[in-house]
Formats: sequence, C-alpha cells, structure tokens
Amino acid sequence: MTDQLTVYFNGEFMPEYEVKISPNDRGFVFGDGSYEVFRSYKGKLFYADEHIVRLKYSLSQLRIEMNNVERIIPTVQQLIEKNNLGEKEATIYLQVSRGVFKRMHAFPDEKVDPTVFIRAREFTPYSEELFQKGVKVITMEDFRWTRCDIKSTALLSNILSAQQAADCNAFESIFLRDGLLTEGSHTNVFAVIDDCVYTHPKSNHILSGISREIVIDLCRTNDITIIEKAITEEQLNNVDELFLVGTSTEVMPVVQLNEKTIRDGNSGPFSRRIQQLYKNYISDYLK
Amino acid sequence: MTDQLTVYFNGEFMPEYEVKISPNDRGFVFGDGSYEVFRSYKGKLFYADEHIVRLKYSLSQLRIEMNNVERIIPTVQQLIEKNNLGEKEATIYLQVSRGVFKRMHAFPDEKVDPTVFIRAREFTPYSEELFQKGVKVITMEDFRWTRCDIKSTALLSNILSAQQAADCNAFESIFLRDGLLTEGSHTNVFAVIDDCVYTHPKSNHILSGISREIVIDLCRTNDITIIEKAITEEQLNNVDELFLVGTSTEVMPVVQLNEKTIRDGNSGPFSRRIQQLYKNYISDYLK
Repeated sequence: MTDQLTVYFNGEFMPEYEVKISPNDRGFVFGDGSYEVFRSYKGKLFYADEHIVRLKYSLSQLRIEMNNVERIIPTVQQLIEKNNLGEKEATIYLQVSRGVFKRMHAFPDEKVDPTVFIRAREFTPYSEELFQKGVKVITMEDFRWTRCDIKSTALLSNILSAQQAADCNAFESIFLRDGLLTEGSHTNVFAVIDDCVYTHPKSNHILSGISREIVIDLCRTNDITIIEKAITEEQLNNVDELFLVGTSTEVMPVVQLNEKTIRDGNSGPFSRRIQQLYKNYISDYLK
Repeated sequence: MTDQLTVYFNGEFMPEYEVKISPNDRGFVFGDGSYEVFRSYKGKLFYADEHIVRLKYSLSQLRIEMNNVERIIPTVQQLIEKNNLGEKEATIYLQVSRGVFKRMHAFPDEKVDPTVFIRAREFTPYSEELFQKGVKVITMEDFRWTRCDIKSTALLSNILSAQQAADCNAFESIFLRDGLLTEGSHTNVFAVIDDCVYTHPKSNHILSGISREIVIDLCRTNDITIIEKAITEEQLNNVDELFLVGTSTEVMPVVQLNEKTIRDGNSGPFSRRIQQLYKNYISDYLK
C-alpha cells in the first residue's frame, strides 16, 4: 500500500505508508483490540459520539485503558481537513489495540500504552440501484464466540462468513444460533412478519449496532410495531420481508434468502418505508 | 521493544525493531492469520515437521496460499544460528497473515502475498518445582468460536481466559462446552478416572495439540488405557488426577480445580509417570 493518505498513529499525523506496527503489537499477534467505523457527510460526523460510547464499552470489557478518548473526535476532524474530505463523504476507521509487549497470552504485567490508529478516507456508498433492487443473503450456523457485544478486531469468523457469502454471490451471511436468527457478519438483521418488525434483542450474541438503534427509534416514532425478539429459523423461512441495517449498509432490503426468493424478488413496503425514513433522518441530522 | 534479535520477515533477515507491519495487514486489522510455536533444544528442532503440517492445515482452512512452506525449517535453523541459540533452548514463533490489502471483510479480490514473520528466542522452561508441585486451574464456560481446530491469531477469547486465570492466581483456564470438558486456553487437558486417562477427541472444539498426540501415543505404547472421550462437568469435579499438556507446558499436573484441592494437593501417579515418559521421550528424540 503506497497510500498518500494522512493518518493518525499514536499521537502523530503521518502518511499512511510511514505507519509502523510492531510485530509485537497485540493487535497483530492476538487480535487484542477494538475498532469503530463511522461516516462523515461533507465534514459532518454522523453519530460519532455514539460510536465513541460503544468504543469505550468494548475497551472497558477488554480492560484496555485508553487516555484522551475525548481527543478522538477533534483528531478525526483534523484528518478530514488534512485529507480534503470536507466536501465529500468519508468513512472513518479507528483501531485501538492493547499495545506492544513481549508475547504472552495474559495482559502485559507492566503498563503499556495502547496503539491508536485512525484513518479517514473517501467513501463511495453502495449504488442506488442496489438499495432499490435489494440483495441476497445466505444463512450460516453462528460459529462465532459468545461475546459478540464486544466490537473486537479478532474478526476471523466474520471474515470467513463474509467470504462464504462472496462465494455464493451473496451480499451477506446471516447467523442462526440454536435455531434463532442473531445478526449478519457485518450488519444487524430485521424481519417483517404480519406487519410487525422483529430484530434480535441486545445480548452477548449480537453487536448492538448504532444504525440498529436508529432504526428501532424510527419505527417507534412512526407507529411501526417493533419487537426486539429473535425469530426462529422457521419464521425466517416464511418472513414477509427481511432487511439489513448497518453504518455502510444503511437499510438494505433482502430479496433472496439462500436459494429462495422473497416477495418475488422485490423489496417490500416496510423495507422501503424504513429505508426512506432512515435517509430522511440522515438528511435532517446533517442540516 | 528495542529487541536486538534477528528475525525473518517477508523474505529477509533483519533486526526485530526494523520489522514494519502495515496498518492494512489483515493480521492487524482482522486477526486473519495462523501461527505456530515450537521448540529447539541445542539447535535441534522438536517435532517441527508436525508443526508445519498443522500450519498447512490451518492455512488451508483459511484459504491462505503460502509459497515455500518447505523453506520454513531451513529459515528457522538460520535464525537459531544468527541468534546464537545453537547451544540453548529456544522457542520459535511463526506467524502467517493473509497479507496487506485495503480493508474489506471478504478475502482480497487480487492476489496478495501473505505476511510471514518468524522469530527464535531463548526459552526458559517452567521451573522444575512447578512441574513437581503442580498448578491450579479454573473452569470457564467455553465462549470461543467453534473452529478451535484452526490455530488462528484471532485469539482474543484465549487472551481473556488467560487473564481470568491470572486474576485467580491460576495457571490456566479450562473450558466446559455444553457440560463437557474441551481443553484449556493454551493447553490440552487430560483426566484420570478409575485408572483410565481421558482427553477430548479431535474435533472442531479443540486444537489438536502436537504434545497431545505424543502423550496419547506414549500411553498406548506403555499400556496406559487412553480414551479419547470428553468427560462431563460432574466427572471433572470427581477426577482422580488432572494434567495439562502443551509445547511449553509439557506435562503439568493440576492439583487445584477452582477452589477444590485434587488429591490433597499432590500430583498423582499417572501424571508423574506420564510426565517422566514425556521427558524421556524428548531426551530420546534429541539423541
């Protein structure tokens, strides 16, 4: 990578190609860290505070002590400026690992500064056509760990699931654990059954997505019945509608589940309405 | 880390402090890689071929294509020489990640060379006293993913378990999944019940340890009944003996399980005999 981006690394701004992660960084050796991805629209950050709250939660669960968390947002704003992203859409990637220490599984027995890396780069959203036409998903047994509430960089199960989806020409893999739908490899999943919208409740089996919360609130304030309850595999196979929700994915209708077409391959009224509510919500937020 | 070791990184020997892992290395971003740890005794590698076979298995499961796997062992031998470890005990750490690519969950859609890092450093074994006195372990619910057969660097669950053990002044955490004993956070577990030795069978719920295989073979060739069958939590709480097995741990008796003492806190005859058989086996191997 000879990327000419300016990034932030451990207190300094520098060209990305100058960043030197140590082979003893616990992020590299163990996946021992957390991350967040959020967006900016013409320089305005979307729900950045909520992403920072979630980062703090993950770090607290991992017992990683990061000083100056309050400096992250000003740093991101500087990155947007330094990379001339103020008039564009951008995606911000923020990774914090436990830091550099000789390899041992337990936490370092001396004080170690976490490694902090932040990058802002131009973001090209998915095409309007994709949002209109909808996508295919595949189901997989949920083989991940049971602390999915921590947004950790130990993402190998998500990687293998995303690749499984790619191999099947699908947009996403969605997981079934003990016969119940949990979430997708990088999205939350919503289902419509008998005019009610269902999504898995907050628990250790899902990552509590920022967009998930927004969609739940949008349903509530727009008299759409939203039920935070996991649906069964059988219910999944008979849903009226299905859609994915995420920071990059926004509200994406699902029109194919494995080899089965949903609603003759057309997105449904709930998906379209919530998609529009979400779009409007972003526009209002950015005003 | 200003370590003066000479290490191997992507085709070159260099001082460890010169190694520069990219922030776009999928090992750093996702824990998307595999590793092995093995030992050398006065320059002679112990079961290195078996570790390479296991590495190949992990890489094949992750679909990481590494060329020149056959060059690893000669490279390790050069590292032992360059670091003057030929008369010492050493531990070799080998990590392969999927390589450097712009961040996307699915595998890179272009050919990317894996990142290869190898380090040999002096190894100080656990004290003879520890092997004699035995150790404490704690039990934890097995909250890891269900592809424990892949030796991946996405080790966060193991890290948290090892820290949980450290918090309890224990040597290791051992896992119960659905009421059955699987393995430890970095060891395999063996139990003795009614003069039979039990260990979890090979499956996706354990890493098939090299030392585990050696111990099973040693039992077989020495008329010790070995049964590859998971024991229940109830059986665990009533074992006659318990011991851990691993590359660094060798054969380590367990004398305390959570708050309960096993055999009045003394290692048992099976543990001591198998410990001695293992020591003799290493000596013979190195002759």
